[in-house]
Amino acid sequence: MTPATSLFAPVEADLQILAENLKQLVGNRHPILYAAAEHLFGAGGKRIRPAIVLLVSRATMQEKDITLRHRRLAEITEMIHTASLVHDDIVDESDMRRGVPTVHSLFGNRIAVLAGDFLFAQSSWYLANLNNLEVVKLLSEVIMDLASGEIQQGLNCFDTSISIEAYLQKSYYKAATLIANSSKAAGLLSEVSPETAEHLYGYGRHFGLAFQIVDDILDFTSSTDTLGKPALSDLKSGNLTAPVLFAMEEKSSLEVLIEREFVQEGDLEQAMALILESQGIQRARELAAEHANMAVEHLANLPPSESRQALMDMADYVLSRLY
Amino acid sequence: MTPATSLFAPVEADLQILAENLKQLVGNRHPILYAAAEHLFGAGGKRIRPAIVLLVSRATMQEKDITLRHRRLAEITEMIHTASLVHDDIVDESDMRRGVPTVHSLFGNRIAVLAGDFLFAQSSWYLANLNNLEVVKLLSEVIMDLASGEIQQGLNCFDTSISIEAYLQKSYYKAATLIANSSKAAGLLSEVSPETAEHLYGYGRHFGLAFQIVDDILDFTSSTDTLGKPALSDLKSGNLTAPVLFAMEEKSSLEVLIEREFVQEGDLEQAMALILESQGIQRARELAAEHANMAVEHLANLPPSESRQALMDMADYVLSRLY
Repeated sequence: MTPATSLFAPVEADLQILAENLKQLVGNRHPILYAAAEHLFGAGGKRIRPAIVLLVSRATMQEKDITLRHRRLAEITEMIHTASLVHDDIVDESDMRRGVPTVHSLFGNRIAVLAGDFLFAQSSWYLANLNNLEVVKLLSEVIMDLASGEIQQGLNCFDTSISIEAYLQKSYYKAATLIANSSKAAGLLSEVSPETAEHLYGYGRHFGLAFQIVDDILDFTSSTDTLGKPALSDLKSGNLTAPVLFAMEEKSSLEVLIEREFVQEGDLEQAMALILESQGIQRARELAAEHANMAVEHLANLPPSESRQALMDMADYVLSRLY
Repeated sequence: MTPATSLFAPVEADLQILAENLKQLVGNRHPILYAAAEHLFGAGGKRIRPAIVLLVSRATMQEKDITLRHRRLAEITEMIHTASLVHDDIVDESDMRRGVPTVHSLFGNRIAVLAGDFLFAQSSWYLANLNNLEVVKLLSEVIMDLASGEIQQGLNCFDTSISIEAYLQKSYYKAATLIANSSKAAGLLSEVSPETAEHLYGYGRHFGLAFQIVDDILDFTSSTDTLGKPALSDLKSGNLTAPVLFAMEEKSSLEVLIEREFVQEGDLEQAMALILESQGIQRARELAAEHANMAVEHLANLPPSESRQALMDMADYVLSRLY
């Protein structure tokens, strides 16, 4: 059990039901996708997104049990996330994810496109059948943001003029929109007040940003083994994240290396050395901590419960991945 | 002006607004998709699907003008259709469509996956914002059916045991579900009775099936030039359609050729000769005519209007493509 999953104690039974449901939902209807589904939903995914939906559901339903619609929302959240990963891996030509080969590298582009489309389609369908127009709007916003984010990332490659604000916007699209909107949606299914709904959105938004900033730092500080994908892959592909953006403010020669896209021998090593010499990683850590703190503040409005505590602890856990 | 577009006279002005809107909606937000959008929405698409939505809208609103929501529904319909084409072309590795190169052959898999995802995402978002849960359900059913249909087609390749019923089911997923559900949705936006809504669904279903059967016949009887894609492409790739399925009932040796996937020299030519000798194409024509007639019958319930007449004429036009 990883530190993350022990935090999920209040919803551990819920997550097991979810894992079984997801495999069945996807695999049963289409044998051709069964292998992909096994691969996708069995591959050591941390299930952070559905865990948050379930924790928010329990924290807002309080003594009452969560409903089938809360569970379905958690499943939809994981389906949307997985669909976007499968298509991102085609777009980014990634061969590894979470330490296992990606769907497109294992089964080919054909199955990867189909599997992603099927997951998106199925999530739209389940979503519509939750019979709550506001929830449909929130999650369709997410699907739109994910597509925009992936396009944006391609456009900004090796663009050294990108600001920290633009980086945070891109990170919101990539990692925070799903957590923010699904947390709010879980609250709406529990019929919370509009004010509480906004706080749940705020929790998800800041948690998601902290999570993404930490992920971006780990790309510099971890080994390929720990990451389950090649280290430094962001930098190599020109995806400029917080540590680089902060480092560029101190080290102007970094810009030159990036703008020539590391074509000369030793460019990448030199860039890495400049980043490590700078305050880039430290400042990125501080930025992540700020967002983690803001996430926790948004929970003050909820009544105390085991689930609320777990949501708070998760914000600490995200930062603890750095040490 | 092709025969099809002259049938669209009652909604010709509407279709021009639609064409402009589609290019703007997709291209403006993402310059990277602008070229793809120009290509997709300018490439001689026949716009049959949005034309039907607009004609149904006018036929059901009668003397009143159609609303912005009717127009948006027509746009959503074309976006969903286009998104599915872009992804189908990746899956089928098709290089040509409507006589022009496909998005993936022109811009690569990366842009094709992104463009399709973005169109699906955008259509989900506009759909949710139509503020009609029943319409959301109908169209999310379509997105699900399209994904299922494409998977099904892959599973049934070179499967000679496939029945005409299974072929019609596959054709429904591929071509009829979108027309059927969007026609019904247009009626719902006009607040028609549940009975009329079902008739609109019936029109779309049978029209879509007739359309697909005719398309499948043209794959045998037309030249590559006329089709805008290589002729006989269905047969070669093992997609068994009405003419082949009927021909197999008469010519048992056809089965052998198909089951060995035309590996021996001359297999394809021999298969083609057997199909032409059989009643396969004639029987497929009769099947298409049956569905076109059933489509027209479902319109009896609507008050007479120019738009209803155009919907009826379109069923004839579909059959006329064969002569």
